[in-house]
Amino acid sequence: MNQSFIYNRRVEFRDTDMAGIVHFSVFFTYMEEAEHEFLRSLGLSVVSVFEGQKLSWPRVAAKCNYRRAIRFEELIDLELTIGRIGEKSVTYHFKFKNGNEIVADGEVTTVCCQFEHGSSPQSIAIPSGVRDLLSPFVVSQM
Amino acid sequence: MNQSFIYNRRVEFRDTDMAGIVHFSVFFTYMEEAEHEFLRSLGLSVVSVFEGQKLSWPRVAAKCNYRRAIRFEELIDLELTIGRIGEKSVTYHFKFKNGNEIVADGEVTTVCCQFEHGSSPQSIAIPSGVRDLLSPFVVSQM
Amino acid sequence: MNQSFIYNRRVEFRDTDMAGIVHFSVFFTYMEEAEHEFLRSLGLSVVSVFEGQKLSWPRVAAKCNYRRAIRFEELIDLELTIGRIGEKSVTYHFKFKNGNEIVADGEVTTVCCQFEHGSSPQSIAIPSGVRDLLSPFVVSQM
Amino acid sequence: MNQSFIYNRRVEFRDTDMAGIVHFSVFFTYMEEAEHEFLRSLGLSVVSVFEGQKLSWPRVAAKCNYRRAIRFEELIDLELTIGRIGEKSVTYHFKFKNGNEIVADGEVTTVCCQFEHGSSPQSIAIPSGVRDLLSPFVVSQM
Repeated sequence: MNQSFIYNRRVEFRDTDMAGIVHFSVFFTYMEEAEHEFLRSLGLSVVSVFEGQKLSWPRVAAKCNYRRAIRFEELIDLELTIGRIGEKSVTYHFKFKNGNEIVADGEVTTVCCQFEHGSSPQSIAIPSGVRDLLSPFVVSQM
Repeated sequence: MNQSFIYNRRVEFRDTDMAGIVHFSVFFTYMEEAEHEFLRSLGLSVVSVFEGQKLSWPRVAAKCNYRRAIRFEELIDLELTIGRIGEKSVTYHFKFKNGNEIVADGEVTTVCCQFEHGSSPQSIAIPSGVRDLLSPFVVSQM
Repeated sequence: MNQSFIYNRRVEFRDTDMAGIVHFSVFFTYMEEAEHEFLRSLGLSVVSVFEGQKLSWPRVAAKCNYRRAIRFEELIDLELTIGRIGEKSVTYHFKFKNGNEIVADGEVTTVCCQFEHGSSPQSIAIPSGVRDLLSPFVVSQM
Repeated sequence: MNQSFIYNRRVEFRDTDMAGIVHFSVFFTYMEEAEHEFLRSLGLSVVSVFEGQKLSWPRVAAKCNYRRAIRFEELIDLELTIGRIGEKSVTYHFKFKNGNEIVADGEVTTVCCQFEHGSSPQSIAIPSGVRDLLSPFVVSQM
């Protein structure tokens, strides 16, 4: 059994395009907003200091499957779970739902990085305190 | 042997985020811009009338892998090829290049749909005239 | 004495740019979100049917003055009032606040238009029922 | 007599909204793109080092008047001139044209600032070398 996190989002006018529906790129910003709200709910932030280290989470892969179009003012629930926590990376799964209907699903993989001013981000092992906070959301395997 | 189509794009300021790099969702709009410029180069448009039918190409899947960050004012070449033309769908492949370095790669699947005012889009077989224009860009299989 | 409407908005990551602050164009989408939420609070929508007429509100002018930068995860209150209701137009005023500090202020003028499929939008007199709903928010003149 | 700078821009699909036209906030990003291309044409950049100082140009005010809607794939010329160069600020004027028709006009005021890591931007007098490059574009007064 695993936990999930729900982020509720109303479709705004600027999210739409001339086809009258939410632009396909906007689903990725919705996933990111859900992830950031999830991290805040754990007392973290996507840009945070954890045990003296400045951490952030650049993305290395993202994908989305679109089942039906969504429209202005529609209320969408994004259901976030974690597919996998690696040594340095986290793969989030998202279901976009209107009620019980899944309208899209997606996946984003982020890498834990340490930032120091003036040098490139360095991927690092996810701190154990962060890992402990995330682990209840890992989808259980059968 | 297959053809490819190159779309050249300078990174604009609004494409960046507070991490100082192009936001991951923007790679999807770059892919779309490249696709639309490709269609125009064939005398088509993503919203077009072909042999009396109003056609458009909603997306059903999109993904991107990020190899390194790209930055403000960087000049990026997107190299477009076609992975597969199905009966009703086209899967585009994109390489994001700075010179010979591949900085990201992505894939978008679109479905040929007929639009009539006041009813939902109907997926249809890709018109043979359109198929003929696209087929030189299909990646040859070994 | 007039009423105001408050719209609360957290700054999302995609709202920022490489300067580490909210991009100046995003203040305009925040104003639009506040306007749409305001219309919903009155039982209206920016795209609505009122007494059998399909109405929408294209913008004819917009401006913003920036007093200080705002940043990721900051919580902003937008305070909406109405500067003027003309025969066909509404001019909204917005104050962007963090607590009691005004960080920006802006103004958007929209025109009431009737839409019929296949023809250009026609500006029309604001229906009296809509005018009645909006008028408590007009800033009182001295 | 003054010079003007022309920036040519095709309307992209993502620039549109469900009303089928370019979203009003996008006119501001077009103005910014034109300004940045203008600065590059002078050998400058919006984020640059000039005579040993790291300079950038935050915005303090922006406005736009919309005369008619613009649409997907339309080609727009932005004509940039400078309304005023103050001691520390530059006010740009923009005309959005399709052929000889002006479809919108706008104005953006930016302030010359020096950035040092870890402290707030400090407004400074525009360096005389930058002022000399900009002055041919100031609209002549009668």
